[in-house]
Amino acid sequence: MTDSDNLQLSRRRLLGTVGAAGAAGLVVGAAGGAGIAAALPGDDTVGAGGAPALTTVGSTAVMFHGKHQAGITTPLQSRGHLVAFDLAPGSGRKEAAALLRRWSATANVLMSGKAPAQDTGVALDAGPSSLTVTFGFGRTFFDRTGLTSRRPAGLDPLPAFSADALDPRRSEGDLWVQIGADDALVAFHALRALQKDAGDAARVRWQMNGFNRSAGATAKPMTARNLMGQVDGTGNPKPSDPDFDRRIFVPAGGAQEWMAGGSYAVVRRIRMLLDDWEKLPLDRQEKVIGRRKSDGAPLTGGTETTELDLDKRGPDGKTVIPDNAHSRISAPEQNGGAAMLRRPFSFHDGIGADGTPDAGLLFVCWQADPLRGFVPVQRKLDRGDALSAFIRHEASGLFAVPGGPAEGEYVGQRLLEA
Amino acid sequence: MTDSDNLQLSRRRLLGTVGAAGAAGLVVGAAGGAGIAAALPGDDTVGAGGAPALTTVGSTAVMFHGKHQAGITTPLQSRGHLVAFDLAPGSGRKEAAALLRRWSATANVLMSGKAPAQDTGVALDAGPSSLTVTFGFGRTFFDRTGLTSRRPAGLDPLPAFSADALDPRRSEGDLWVQIGADDALVAFHALRALQKDAGDAARVRWQMNGFNRSAGATAKPMTARNLMGQVDGTGNPKPSDPDFDRRIFVPAGGAQEWMAGGSYAVVRRIRMLLDDWEKLPLDRQEKVIGRRKSDGAPLTGGTETTELDLDKRGPDGKTVIPDNAHSRISAPEQNGGAAMLRRPFSFHDGIGADGTPDAGLLFVCWQADPLRGFVPVQRKLDRGDALSAFIRHEASGLFAVPGGPAEGEYVGQRLLEA
Repeated sequence: MTDSDNLQLSRRRLLGTVGAAGAAGLVVGAAGGAGIAAALPGDDTVGAGGAPALTTVGSTAVMFHGKHQAGITTPLQSRGHLVAFDLAPGSGRKEAAALLRRWSATANVLMSGKAPAQDTGVALDAGPSSLTVTFGFGRTFFDRTGLTSRRPAGLDPLPAFSADALDPRRSEGDLWVQIGADDALVAFHALRALQKDAGDAARVRWQMNGFNRSAGATAKPMTARNLMGQVDGTGNPKPSDPDFDRRIFVPAGGAQEWMAGGSYAVVRRIRMLLDDWEKLPLDRQEKVIGRRKSDGAPLTGGTETTELDLDKRGPDGKTVIPDNAHSRISAPEQNGGAAMLRRPFSFHDGIGADGTPDAGLLFVCWQADPLRGFVPVQRKLDRGDALSAFIRHEASGLFAVPGGPAEGEYVGQRLLEA
Repeated sequence: MTDSDNLQLSRRRLLGTVGAAGAAGLVVGAAGGAGIAAALPGDDTVGAGGAPALTTVGSTAVMFHGKHQAGITTPLQSRGHLVAFDLAPGSGRKEAAALLRRWSATANVLMSGKAPAQDTGVALDAGPSSLTVTFGFGRTFFDRTGLTSRRPAGLDPLPAFSADALDPRRSEGDLWVQIGADDALVAFHALRALQKDAGDAARVRWQMNGFNRSAGATAKPMTARNLMGQVDGTGNPKPSDPDFDRRIFVPAGGAQEWMAGGSYAVVRRIRMLLDDWEKLPLDRQEKVIGRRKSDGAPLTGGTETTELDLDKRGPDGKTVIPDNAHSRISAPEQNGGAAMLRRPFSFHDGIGADGTPDAGLLFVCWQADPLRGFVPVQRKLDRGDALSAFIRHEASGLFAVPGGPAEGEYVGQRLLEA
């Protein structure tokens, strides 16, 4: 067998094996005619030279149908779009139902790597690239559709936080769509297709673009880093935790049965004041967070996943992890076990009007109940987090994300057609 | 051997083989302590689940030193930043030389996957990820540094084009930096490090962010697609062409010897009027371009790389590729063999002030002489390109990009210290 044969075999095997070991809810395989070609990079065309052929980056497809919507426990994708829509004047429940039906059909087609009718072609050649599309309803949706009585308590407005500097034009919205993919053109393609589906029924209220690390860029699967350079997401609950479902997903049998299997997304555009942050010496940055920058380990020692020793004191008698350290204040054990699943994208929109980088975190967190997830933690952070001097919450949204659709069903059907 | 052993072996072999077959000028290998770990995705941490470990995506390093600067013939990267700086008042030749020395040192460190002093940490964990940093000088640089007599004729201002709608605040600049990488955090990290190096010597004039397809997202190495969905870059000269160097790089022995081995970059922010474009039916889009959307083949038949049959007529007696088709007008054979190497990024900055997508192409093209590369082609396009109704040139820059630095040298040293 030549090296080249070997390589082809290996790559097929690689795809198959990784597929089997992949995260729950993922189907690895070629879709939409994008065969798993093991072409070697013998072509010296600029733009193609050393690039590997379709790998799991492109071939991974996420299922649209299921108990929960995709894009919640799906591994972080390298590219994302968050979009809020408002129903157009004159659009009510009927138009909203038709829109969700169109959107669901399109999301299903796109997530399997196929092209919708009258396609723009932007995603041609590419595999599904782990595309996910996730739909949610904002508080205002229910009045506009005559469904006020079915609005869940989980959509009660978030309390005001003293450090908030929210721009209402980039906050909230009747409908929310989260798009994620491991290819920027695949994500953009989905964004345009869904915008087109909106037609006259809804208008874009705001839209934000984000990104995460590329698959394969790190030596091993790592917890993400944010644009401050911090390991970010260490304390996240894991789908294998016994109480994961209870904390993240709405159980059946609640006051609003249509939300069974759903979750609440809190979305915050958190600007990072990077010019200020980067002037801070490393040891002071680490005290702000309470963790080492290099590997995310607590300042009290160990590795990234070692628990914080909140009582440990240094030679100066002070706690090693300062009282206002971000990791202390946000630690679940300090918040009655509150847990949310943070699944953010970084953003970078160039240079802001004030001359500083318009960059930071598109914070997206998931929980069965915002009053037990985001709210208590943010209340505490708002009071005394050392990090707050270096960030600014510029926009906010709270959305009810219904459970995943069964085959033949569209997202939100249990609300809109009950 | 278990499947798992096999997988580890395969992946190492994969890295080695692809490395050997990679494009000239690339060094594949672990750098900066990011070893090639063949970790299997057994960890079910959200955000890491199915992600492969460090692959060529992360481990590929591009050499900083060489005959030409990196980022010209380097395969397209999935993420890019273009930044222009103006020298600060009071900064002259001495300060510019010190800045280029700092920048070169930082670029060399970053491109090898190492961290600079007082690092922000944003790229920690990641391999070099094909990072390239490319430096150029704008026309105004030479007056500000007292080097007017050494300004090359290639920097004479581009002619005005009738369809231009250029924003001077986002055009030109004393200095230009192009950053590309296959990981968004690696690219952002480099951007911030280089901005910090600028210190008080230079200020950001404008900055743009772009992207291309992710490596591994397509079934085989493909010519890129743009956000209109068109295959874009088919006619690009290839480094293996006998006259490639002559067309793209400045030869030794010219009027400005410091530019030997260098090239000229024309940078245009080309907004795509996607709302209008996407309303056009497929067959009309294809007539605007003169190529099939699906595979980029000429409307006169064949495959992507088949030459256009410019004389072929259809049953209606008209040329199959219309007289105003973009591909006809820009064909090298229609422009005295003019050739430039187009190496763009797409951009998407959300929704513009006019409510339409602020998206399009960060067009970057390379040539030994702009008057024989970009200018004649753009002149013709400006007169009769059917595509011009769907695009708008919003910003423009022309930069002299000197040859690559020898070991121990910094970029531009031959200009600044002669």
